[in-house]
Amino acid sequence: MRNFADRLLDAIDAKKNPSIIGLDSDFSKLPAALRKGHEREGDPFDAAAACMLAFNERIIDAIADVVPAVKLQSAFYEQYGPAGVRAFIETSEYAKKKGLIVVGDVKRGDIGSTSAAYASAYLGKSVLFDGTESAFGLDCITVNPYLGSDGVKPFVDEARNTGNGIFVLVKTSNPSSSEIQDLTCGARKVCEKVAELVHSWGRDAIGGRGYSSVGAVVGATYPEDARKLRRIMPHAIFLVPGYGSQGGGAKDVLPCFDDDGSGAIVNSSRDVIFAYQKSGKDSRFAEEARAAAIRMKDDITKALLEDGKKPW
Amino acid sequence: MRNFADRLLDAIDAKKNPSIIGLDSDFSKLPAALRKGHEREGDPFDAAAACMLAFNERIIDAIADVVPAVKLQSAFYEQYGPAGVRAFIETSEYAKKKGLIVVGDVKRGDIGSTSAAYASAYLGKSVLFDGTESAFGLDCITVNPYLGSDGVKPFVDEARNTGNGIFVLVKTSNPSSSEIQDLTCGARKVCEKVAELVHSWGRDAIGGRGYSSVGAVVGATYPEDARKLRRIMPHAIFLVPGYGSQGGGAKDVLPCFDDDGSGAIVNSSRDVIFAYQKSGKDSRFAEEARAAAIRMKDDITKALLEDGKKPW
Repeated sequence: MRNFADRLLDAIDAKKNPSIIGLDSDFSKLPAALRKGHEREGDPFDAAAACMLAFNERIIDAIADVVPAVKLQSAFYEQYGPAGVRAFIETSEYAKKKGLIVVGDVKRGDIGSTSAAYASAYLGKSVLFDGTESAFGLDCITVNPYLGSDGVKPFVDEARNTGNGIFVLVKTSNPSSSEIQDLTCGARKVCEKVAELVHSWGRDAIGGRGYSSVGAVVGATYPEDARKLRRIMPHAIFLVPGYGSQGGGAKDVLPCFDDDGSGAIVNSSRDVIFAYQKSGKDSRFAEEARAAAIRMKDDITKALLEDGKKPW
Repeated sequence: MRNFADRLLDAIDAKKNPSIIGLDSDFSKLPAALRKGHEREGDPFDAAAACMLAFNERIIDAIADVVPAVKLQSAFYEQYGPAGVRAFIETSEYAKKKGLIVVGDVKRGDIGSTSAAYASAYLGKSVLFDGTESAFGLDCITVNPYLGSDGVKPFVDEARNTGNGIFVLVKTSNPSSSEIQDLTCGARKVCEKVAELVHSWGRDAIGGRGYSSVGAVVGATYPEDARKLRRIMPHAIFLVPGYGSQGGGAKDVLPCFDDDGSGAIVNSSRDVIFAYQKSGKDSRFAEEARAAAIRMKDDITKALLEDGKKPW
């Protein structure tokens, strides 16, 4: 069983692309050309979910040779109840079949016994009448650290035992992340204290390439914080939201990488999957997404090279 | 449309019982007597989920005249994928039909646009091809504050617009809650800073009884913190975990109430729904749960009265 960090870094190298596309496939933003075929399906939740799955399959087909991984934002699927959750799982299975690593952006976190249930749901196996089986079977999920070690450790253990990974929220990309994450406690911000915890949680999950299966979410919108956090968590892969529509540029993500240009993966969601909204080419939404994913790859690669980093 | 805080406090008064039972219906702990009938259902996830639903219905029947509300811990349902989520929704619908208020313990929290999707999923309505419909239709959910105001506000707005509520995690009951929540920032702990935010978020959602639809999760295991937090958030109803199996006693929950013995609701989960495990009376699990719920009600009422509080 391979370490998750090794798997992810190898996938990044194979595609020469440290980016991950977020399938935040908000039903209300799906292209009219695609929606047409699904309007008359029976149950309205099933119809919406089927449309989301069809959209995701087209996007995955279009980007599978460009990017190493996709991230599924659970909220947009949970909106459609059981049908939406089924579309989430089927999207994940489809992406895996196409060779992509799948990160579930679920931001779960609870007290110990409950976190263990979430961990087995998303990364491990669920107990059935007869044996056990994967419910979601993801490669990785995002985890909220607010409850501390006993709320996070079950995820760490499950990740290590299954060859999967987690990204713990450290410094998020949104404007008000400062309210709690930037509170100063002595010489450190809260997010730096969380970073110290992440560093310790990940210590026993370091793979052959020097990175841990316990990574960190660090937003592209706060490059100064990223620089400090990179030093506090030398073994954590950074999952970097905030590039693109949230305002982060390619230069802003540079502090998230290590000196070799490795150790980070940059996320973009709406700007890629809904690129068709800018061009107006509704029926060519998949091609537009592919073009946007390639532009993002080129943009980040150029910034890395100009910064003197040669990851490939 | 009535304010959620008013609805909840009235329901507590009607039952003369400030407690809420957690349906943390972990499949692997369900009584053998109940499991028997479900073993041979087709899909193994459907079979487990059907068994959980049957268990919940029996528990709800047994406690519906004793308690004002139930709390569903989402993790135990998500373990069974779409089938588990369906059991979650059907349990919620069943509890509502029996006159109970339903709190979804989902601990969601994300950046603004994503939080809005979670809020509409759990408290509001989802956009379909034709119109909108409730996916989960809960009365209330728990929310994680780590991302700050723009991650929480969409939940506040949705709650206010729909007559529903939220409980924001402030000081959780687990042992390592201290790691982040007790970091000191100047004169305040992080949890006190979060409490100040909760107080401000809830200001526009105060009902006729003086409490807000934006409540707070404050663990029974840290009574000293509860005392301070009660003062910082005078309008927040406290949802109090940690009573019973986590070590909190009836006296420990007293600081969560106001001077009139109102403004808090105490949760117990495993100790009530799995009470049969202690007595060994497997086939009488529902009666054992009812007896445990009544013991809890009496225990808390006695402590309130001894403390000079006469809520009813």
